[in-house]
Amino acid sequence: MIILGIDPGTARIGYAILKKENGGAKLLDYGCLELKDREQKTRLAEISRFMGGIIAEHRPGILSIEKLFFTKNAKTAFSVSEARGVIINSANLAGLEIVEFTPPEVKIAATGYGKADKKQVQKMVCRMLNLEKIPEPDDASDAIAIALAACYTNPKLKN
Amino acid sequence: MIILGIDPGTARIGYAILKKENGGAKLLDYGCLELKDREQKTRLAEISRFMGGIIAEHRPGILSIEKLFFTKNAKTAFSVSEARGVIINSANLAGLEIVEFTPPEVKIAATGYGKADKKQVQKMVCRMLNLEKIPEPDDASDAIAIALAACYTNPKLKN
Repeated sequence: MIILGIDPGTARIGYAILKKENGGAKLLDYGCLELKDREQKTRLAEISRFMGGIIAEHRPGILSIEKLFFTKNAKTAFSVSEARGVIINSANLAGLEIVEFTPPEVKIAATGYGKADKKQVQKMVCRMLNLEKIPEPDDASDAIAIALAACYTNPKLKN
Repeated sequence: MIILGIDPGTARIGYAILKKENGGAKLLDYGCLELKDREQKTRLAEISRFMGGIIAEHRPGILSIEKLFFTKNAKTAFSVSEARGVIINSANLAGLEIVEFTPPEVKIAATGYGKADKKQVQKMVCRMLNLEKIPEPDDASDAIAIALAACYTNPKLKN
């Protein structure tokens, strides 16, 4: 099973493609969609184009995406939610199962601790995927952690 | 020029189709997309299908949509924003111009007063469109007011 992990944002969207097999997970692809200095409608159009492309290329069966669960900046949260709407709809219309995790749930899945710091999460991501160094930028390594959360919590993927 | 007005929500999406001509506006269609008791991903799929259908039928040149500008309930605001993302992206990819108004801006366009109550706005909507009674449900009459705001504030539509 292939999992697409997405860390949604306004200026940047991190993504990761993992393959779950034989009880382990393999990192197939990762990166970051750069969207700064664009109008919101242009960002949304680029996000839907990106989703169509990555789904066609890797044929994932699951979208794992971070959920917003509280906010200091309402304007940013509304923009990120608009992006999430386009991402979830693109994946759902392409037949992917949708799973969502809050930031603490992602941390718990990676480290067992919901208030773990970013470095600790990144270290565990490297260990779980046998990576020599932390994938960059942070948006991409966050997306890998989000995809891993689906690998290790979804009953269909446990073995 | 045809204007599609949308009042985005979680359980209900109001819509209106107006035609601006000879200095006046004519109401061609209005209604409400009922989305309660559904999962969010199903709502988003129905919204994108609805957008495709109404754009194909009426060929609007402008989407006028209400903007969220503050919130008491973050969870609802995030869901409405996800719907807004899908609506804006569908319209933008179909070539529509996107215009957005906050609730006070819609009230000012209809009545001249940003804190006007719902009845006052509905009364002015009826007067501006020569309607005998207030269109129902409220989500639909709100969408008509949002479409009218575009008619009377967009420089391309003034004459």
